[in-house]
Amino acid sequence: MPASRRPTVAVFGAGGYAGSLAARLLHGHPIFELRFITGRGDVGQRLDRVYPHHRVPLALEEADIDRHADVDAAVVAYPHGASAEFVAQLRERGVKVVDLSADFRLRDVETYEEWYQPHPHPELIGNAVYGLPELYRDQVAEAELVANPGCYPTATILALAPLARAGLIADVIVDAKSGVSGAGRAATDKTHFVTVDENVNAYGMPRHRHTPEIEQELALLGSATTITFTPHLLPLDQGELVSCYVTLSDSTVSTGELESLYRDAYDREQFIELVAEPAGVRAVRETNFCRMSLHRDDRTGRAIVFAAIDNLWKGTASEAVQNLNLMFGLPEGAGIAG
Amino acid sequence: MPASRRPTVAVFGAGGYAGSLAARLLHGHPIFELRFITGRGDVGQRLDRVYPHHRVPLALEEADIDRHADVDAAVVAYPHGASAEFVAQLRERGVKVVDLSADFRLRDVETYEEWYQPHPHPELIGNAVYGLPELYRDQVAEAELVANPGCYPTATILALAPLARAGLIADVIVDAKSGVSGAGRAATDKTHFVTVDENVNAYGMPRHRHTPEIEQELALLGSATTITFTPHLLPLDQGELVSCYVTLSDSTVSTGELESLYRDAYDREQFIELVAEPAGVRAVRETNFCRMSLHRDDRTGRAIVFAAIDNLWKGTASEAVQNLNLMFGLPEGAGIAG
Amino acid sequence: MPASRRPTVAVFGAGGYAGSLAARLLHGHPIFELRFITGRGDVGQRLDRVYPHHRVPLALEEADIDRHADVDAAVVAYPHGASAEFVAQLRERGVKVVDLSADFRLRDVETYEEWYQPHPHPELIGNAVYGLPELYRDQVAEAELVANPGCYPTATILALAPLARAGLIADVIVDAKSGVSGAGRAATDKTHFVTVDENVNAYGMPRHRHTPEIEQELALLGSATTITFTPHLLPLDQGELVSCYVTLSDSTVSTGELESLYRDAYDREQFIELVAEPAGVRAVRETNFCRMSLHRDDRTGRAIVFAAIDNLWKGTASEAVQNLNLMFGLPEGAGIAG
Amino acid sequence: MPASRRPTVAVFGAGGYAGSLAARLLHGHPIFELRFITGRGDVGQRLDRVYPHHRVPLALEEADIDRHADVDAAVVAYPHGASAEFVAQLRERGVKVVDLSADFRLRDVETYEEWYQPHPHPELIGNAVYGLPELYRDQVAEAELVANPGCYPTATILALAPLARAGLIADVIVDAKSGVSGAGRAATDKTHFVTVDENVNAYGMPRHRHTPEIEQELALLGSATTITFTPHLLPLDQGELVSCYVTLSDSTVSTGELESLYRDAYDREQFIELVAEPAGVRAVRETNFCRMSLHRDDRTGRAIVFAAIDNLWKGTASEAVQNLNLMFGLPEGAGIAG
Repeated sequence: MPASRRPTVAVFGAGGYAGSLAARLLHGHPIFELRFITGRGDVGQRLDRVYPHHRVPLALEEADIDRHADVDAAVVAYPHGASAEFVAQLRERGVKVVDLSADFRLRDVETYEEWYQPHPHPELIGNAVYGLPELYRDQVAEAELVANPGCYPTATILALAPLARAGLIADVIVDAKSGVSGAGRAATDKTHFVTVDENVNAYGMPRHRHTPEIEQELALLGSATTITFTPHLLPLDQGELVSCYVTLSDSTVSTGELESLYRDAYDREQFIELVAEPAGVRAVRETNFCRMSLHRDDRTGRAIVFAAIDNLWKGTASEAVQNLNLMFGLPEGAGIAG
Repeated sequence: MPASRRPTVAVFGAGGYAGSLAARLLHGHPIFELRFITGRGDVGQRLDRVYPHHRVPLALEEADIDRHADVDAAVVAYPHGASAEFVAQLRERGVKVVDLSADFRLRDVETYEEWYQPHPHPELIGNAVYGLPELYRDQVAEAELVANPGCYPTATILALAPLARAGLIADVIVDAKSGVSGAGRAATDKTHFVTVDENVNAYGMPRHRHTPEIEQELALLGSATTITFTPHLLPLDQGELVSCYVTLSDSTVSTGELESLYRDAYDREQFIELVAEPAGVRAVRETNFCRMSLHRDDRTGRAIVFAAIDNLWKGTASEAVQNLNLMFGLPEGAGIAG
Repeated sequence: MPASRRPTVAVFGAGGYAGSLAARLLHGHPIFELRFITGRGDVGQRLDRVYPHHRVPLALEEADIDRHADVDAAVVAYPHGASAEFVAQLRERGVKVVDLSADFRLRDVETYEEWYQPHPHPELIGNAVYGLPELYRDQVAEAELVANPGCYPTATILALAPLARAGLIADVIVDAKSGVSGAGRAATDKTHFVTVDENVNAYGMPRHRHTPEIEQELALLGSATTITFTPHLLPLDQGELVSCYVTLSDSTVSTGELESLYRDAYDREQFIELVAEPAGVRAVRETNFCRMSLHRDDRTGRAIVFAAIDNLWKGTASEAVQNLNLMFGLPEGAGIAG
Repeated sequence: MPASRRPTVAVFGAGGYAGSLAARLLHGHPIFELRFITGRGDVGQRLDRVYPHHRVPLALEEADIDRHADVDAAVVAYPHGASAEFVAQLRERGVKVVDLSADFRLRDVETYEEWYQPHPHPELIGNAVYGLPELYRDQVAEAELVANPGCYPTATILALAPLARAGLIADVIVDAKSGVSGAGRAATDKTHFVTVDENVNAYGMPRHRHTPEIEQELALLGSATTITFTPHLLPLDQGELVSCYVTLSDSTVSTGELESLYRDAYDREQFIELVAEPAGVRAVRETNFCRMSLHRDDRTGRAIVFAAIDNLWKGTASEAVQNLNLMFGLPEGAGIAG
């Protein structure tokens, strides 16, 4: 692309919560030009009718690879499996892709097929970069295909990375709490207001699909372990908190040493906030921040780490834009820094 | 039925919010015996699986008039139109019926057909009693077919009856606010948690179907008027508040006289609470109470009446039980008085 | 001030909800430079400790007129009465002021003193401009003292202005609904989560202080009338909806003509959104937009107008910035347009 | 007391959430007669003014031991420390007491003084029975002083008792989630609607006072262990969920064997519900039920137990009535079984 024009981008699957927010962020982006948005259910409707608060005046079109691949980059917000098929076509045409599905997150195709389904394009997995900028910034900058992390993995891996890198995680239990937007736009018994209001319960028991993604990354960082991961649904719309209970592999490590690991990892990160009080989700609502606090349970020796994100922002759509920014050599916070 | 046994009852349409609550109240009723519950979507399932908090250990059956009409009374929680058909069959078999639909609320079939649809059994309308016990207690006691009022009409008519009887209503605007359970169990965009949370908006504009029901009753009481009725959806599960702005036909009436009208009407009513502060819905949650406050806007002369109910209880299911109690000569509060 | 430097601004009373948001918007403003923030309760604390989501890294100072008046402009978020005293001192020192209190909103000091308290600086009232940019854009641009409208008046006056200007308002009832942030930061029985949750009720009966402000503006626009204004508290944090029921002075005016009045008034307004469906507050959360819909009740002839704003944004703090922008000749949406 | 009359009861500290609910349950109790209620802040006010939804028409009096000890039993809802002083006086006068504070929960006074404060009446500890009816039914029936468990301990100990008795708990992490009523009636920054709404965060880090109470009971049951207990605050009013992650001391025990332990412990318990799906709090709202589900994480071998209660009911006030029923030889569910 010539240096003189704005890079163009399309969002495929902009009818859902994640895709529509990606469209909003890219529509308001100072450098990218949002050219197309596609959807299934509301074809022909303007997105600002379907999601008034996003104020994107483009109409949702039916996806047409020939017409819509004429862009520099794409965000693909398709269901698992369907995504890989479509991403393959975009890649053939040279479009850089940030994929919001799980299709390219797991480096091991067998693990993918155990937790999901047969993979239609395993040959692409090797080229994909796991799009957690705080861990893989340089690789993302070189990537043409980025697998955007899941929302729970984003929070959990960021929460645990400093300990994992130091090889300090002997065992970890992640009790996760999410707002309802994490369940998506589908109207079901589970997302009905009357079901959720004044309620809280675990779901996805006993094996949530985000588990292998978290284990893969912890292992790559230096702490191979089998985790317990249990998500809960809460009566709020956006926001996700992970409470991570870590049994340390070295019980003699001091709290001060643990704190140093976090400061070293994150003090220069634009979108990570280390705080002393237990992190809450309200402080990160509609932002790309991950807010985090580290605590020590002196009676058991455990480290407890809380990490709070907005599941639709840092957990999905604004993280996708953060990745796009890196892939195009732009300031990392362009269009998502408030 | 012999005096020595408990009257039996069936709830048809117990898979919805209203019907399932009626089933709960009748299952726990000290005198009625709940014999059958029927539903469409969850046939074969026990109701305490579908609605755990109701704790009704009966299974939902597919409605079978021959089998299920073998009861003394029925609560019918069917959609408008479908209800009249089924009620007719129950009445042929001698079953006393409380019908939760609108099918027998409007005394004038033409008005019904203007706001709803062709009426399959207009001949039954004349025999139906409008089941607002505080207004029609004696008629309900004699009735074999009771049309249970709508939730908004229950609150609005109770709020305005003392003024209507005195012929004091020149004009009235009803701004109504309801929790989401009023929209029923159907999972739609409108009942999705993320749509409702942190939101409030009017709906059913400009003509909500509860309007003619309210106008009919005000006219019968003595104040024929065309009202403006506008419901709003609120982020809460159960509860309904009507804010009634009344232009009085006689501006010289004193506030003290207005207050007397309300005390005279309601001081001996078990389920009406007159209070000084603006009535709120939290105080009536999961009760058969209608809580009410009367205010005077001295600058305009208007009377302002707030009435709060639980839309599923006094607005629907517990009011149905209150009617059943009257129809069987039982204490009016049996099974619904906490 | 020399053209080459950024105009400086201070926020007085930045410890409350309104002032802290004004501080956030000015801290992130592309042109203004936020120099000081003052508060009472949290002096010495950084604002990002008190309000983490605003991310303003300045410390709250105790107000010191000599030190803090060294700015080009000030936003004053003080209680009624206290504000006028302080504003007078700022004006003496030549600081341009946007005042968030009611002290300079009412042009008639007697009306102010009837609804509030003795006014310490009535001589300043004549110089103040009522800061509703959509109505008084040119005057605000020339003003040195702007009285920022109340949140309810902002929504109500915008909702009714096209009708008022046409002299069409014979009578109006405003049923207003607000989130809890409108009650401010003070922790009381009324703002306790358990009081508000699953509740809705009117408050401020029978005479809310925003009434004369609305009546003043309607009269100035061309429709002198005594209004009924009744606010309700809702279980949400930010957002305000006014439902305005207007009896028209000319019942022959067509719905099309009414619609034209609104289009003519607002089609070119950056921050007004005219929509067909009843406006809801979720679509304007954390924005400077006022979203509005006009409906006709054909049975009564009434016009019904809904207007939704975020009470802390367009209802207070972002409107204050909109006014500041005008006062300094900046683009009206600078720093508040998302 | 003569067999022919109803036992009388007083509630001390009825101005708070727990005490007022105890008053409601005892006022509506079929056998107890509620004679006095006392409070500090609202002396002279009728309780149905302060808590309309409880509908208790008694006035709050200032506590007077001479006057108010003329009852058969008392529920004391005083702060820790203050409670022991008052309970001692009641016991001297022969009044049977259920104490809602922590003052008599810990059998070891040193532990109490480490986590709370100096204990004014350690001599009474030995006579107190820990009032968890499902574990100590017979002792409660004989007791004259019952220490009502904390809300978190109620849920947690019930969740873990079958495993603890079998000596199967090697280690346990309890991630607890509570509604805001658990923080009490005091209006603070932390209970302000705007703080809690759309939020979730941990609190009481790193040492919550309920920890030793849980550890004491687990040890008595057979599993002495140091636990990690972390409560979180959720945007709902009533309801508490504990998510218990248990490392089993014997990894060869089968899931079927674990399930048998729970069925054996609880199948005949009136107020325990064992369910297959993860237990949620909405199903137990305003009830004395503890709803519980057991799951096995096959990948790690852990047992995961969820237990849901209403913190004000089974967690406090209805459990107190359950204890009173036992102490007076009444049916255990009298007045609390819906």
